[in-house]
Amino acid sequence: MTAGRAFDPARLRQLGTRLLVAVGAPEDEAQIVAEELVEASLMGLDSHGVIRLVQYANDARAGKIRPGAPVAIVRQTPTTAVVDCGLNFGPVTARRMVAIATEKARAAGLACVVSQNGQHVSRLGSYTQKLAEGGLVGLAFANSSRHGHWVVPWGGRDGRLATNPLSWAVPTHGDPIVMDMSTSMISEGKLRVLRNQGRPAPVDAIQDADGNATTDPNQFYGPPRGTIRPLGGPVGYKGFGLGLLVEIMGGCLAGNRTSDDLPYVNGLCLLAIDPGPLAGGPSFVGLMDDLVAYVGSSRPAPGSSEVVLPGALDFRTRQQRLQTGVPLDDETWGQLQEAARQLGVAVPD
Amino acid sequence: MTAGRAFDPARLRQLGTRLLVAVGAPEDEAQIVAEELVEASLMGLDSHGVIRLVQYANDARAGKIRPGAPVAIVRQTPTTAVVDCGLNFGPVTARRMVAIATEKARAAGLACVVSQNGQHVSRLGSYTQKLAEGGLVGLAFANSSRHGHWVVPWGGRDGRLATNPLSWAVPTHGDPIVMDMSTSMISEGKLRVLRNQGRPAPVDAIQDADGNATTDPNQFYGPPRGTIRPLGGPVGYKGFGLGLLVEIMGGCLAGNRTSDDLPYVNGLCLLAIDPGPLAGGPSFVGLMDDLVAYVGSSRPAPGSSEVVLPGALDFRTRQQRLQTGVPLDDETWGQLQEAARQLGVAVPD
Repeated sequence: MTAGRAFDPARLRQLGTRLLVAVGAPEDEAQIVAEELVEASLMGLDSHGVIRLVQYANDARAGKIRPGAPVAIVRQTPTTAVVDCGLNFGPVTARRMVAIATEKARAAGLACVVSQNGQHVSRLGSYTQKLAEGGLVGLAFANSSRHGHWVVPWGGRDGRLATNPLSWAVPTHGDPIVMDMSTSMISEGKLRVLRNQGRPAPVDAIQDADGNATTDPNQFYGPPRGTIRPLGGPVGYKGFGLGLLVEIMGGCLAGNRTSDDLPYVNGLCLLAIDPGPLAGGPSFVGLMDDLVAYVGSSRPAPGSSEVVLPGALDFRTRQQRLQTGVPLDDETWGQLQEAARQLGVAVPD
Repeated sequence: MTAGRAFDPARLRQLGTRLLVAVGAPEDEAQIVAEELVEASLMGLDSHGVIRLVQYANDARAGKIRPGAPVAIVRQTPTTAVVDCGLNFGPVTARRMVAIATEKARAAGLACVVSQNGQHVSRLGSYTQKLAEGGLVGLAFANSSRHGHWVVPWGGRDGRLATNPLSWAVPTHGDPIVMDMSTSMISEGKLRVLRNQGRPAPVDAIQDADGNATTDPNQFYGPPRGTIRPLGGPVGYKGFGLGLLVEIMGGCLAGNRTSDDLPYVNGLCLLAIDPGPLAGGPSFVGLMDDLVAYVGSSRPAPGSSEVVLPGALDFRTRQQRLQTGVPLDDETWGQLQEAARQLGVAVPD
């Protein structure tokens, strides 16, 4: 990451929208994508934020992403839906899935919505957060197609799963609790940063191409290519089990075969639960407030300044960046300017 | 663990049934409990197996477990149910919940069934396994009431959650895939074994009462009492997030407040998904077969003999123990004999 400066989020949204319209996106889709990416950056999740704009634009130009492609429900019941995303932008199709899941869960108590032909969804927690903002308990699972299988099964040498994130969120009277995590020890994005900085990977996180533990990110990138271990260190069979669950929910439930080389990027599964018929909606939100207070009342351990619940730091970063702007390094800003130049798009002031 | 020998599972089931009938259980409930505990032992999960028989009998005599208590659906919709377990034996009420979840998921596609006043459910994976044997995708979450809160939030010093296990299972044409894991670095039961053996706990697994990392199990037991860290080591915020999810699903969705001191032991949440309306039932089972083959085709890493899917080793142990018997150490067998003597129960040959 080179030196950089901070940008007004509205300006980034406008630039993003213009870039995506220039590569063929309808205005409303371009706005959704720009909004989701800027929002991820506002929350501090930069690897899933504005840095992806140029990638999305390039993928659209290359035909990998198909702006404007119809998003169709292939089959549905009152509680379930299989959605063909047609390789449209991930944030566009994931938002549509959130709307379907919300409607079904409110009517039927529960909903499970899965995707086929889904592109990169960016920040998974955005979609569970939206379910929670609608008063629901939201769970999300995102697998990746075979070409992203860098993560080994427990005790294995060959990658068989992606970093397979899962997310959940619940409503409170304040910000929702939003958990968003990969099921591996480290993400490929973080490894890339460590390699560029010449720093080692954590112990137990990666293997070389022969399956030996290493902390050298270069051994992962090879050639020959190494692998990533599942979450858990000495109990990595747990992370492996979680990664498999994500594969099954995000991929197989929609009919995708794990070993096939399909054109999708992320398979998304949304599970939505209306707490109304269970704990009762208002009671449940009260219980979540209490959970936040009770868990947060744990004194910090030595070396830790406070105990926070999942997502709390992200919401704090968002408040801060709404004031100070979204920091972008010079390289990312340069890429955005170059893309604007190539596409004949005016960079907004 | 003292020296011991192996016992015929039928003999253990019979003894268990007699002991539980002697403490007031109806014959059918006693049979279910004995069957579940012997089954856990057959699968090698001894800490949740026959060793619990005497504990269950004692708890029933002390009024903590209430044999014969009615299991009532407090409220329900076509997709959801809240079940009051009345502090009856956990395996009895959990099996009833499996039946409810199966029926609802088959009719409505999805089901979520949660418990109030639930006792110890023993092997959580038994219930997702049963859902999978019924052709469903099963997920289960089991929280514990406040007195079991040994696990710290990430960066915390005071315990706020239990070891909060989760389980999932899916059907294949062979044995189902069955994952069953705690969301902490180690369970209390394993710490007890390590302490008794004078062996250290794994790195990053436990803290002393001041919140400092330690590998000395005695520092956990105190006094003053220490704590257990969430799954993940350097990324323990992930295990913390999973533990919170289990608390919310297993406890709060049924209306239980995490900070209250309620008489239940485990809050159980079962989620059942019929793959039929999604991938299609037969297609889905085929996809699971392929998943087993594809993941299992990863070459083992150095130091590992094979890659196996979750539950596979347990089913292998079961086959073995059906031949060789269930091994019990002398102390456990002695306790069973003593309980039989006290209750005037004949130990079957």
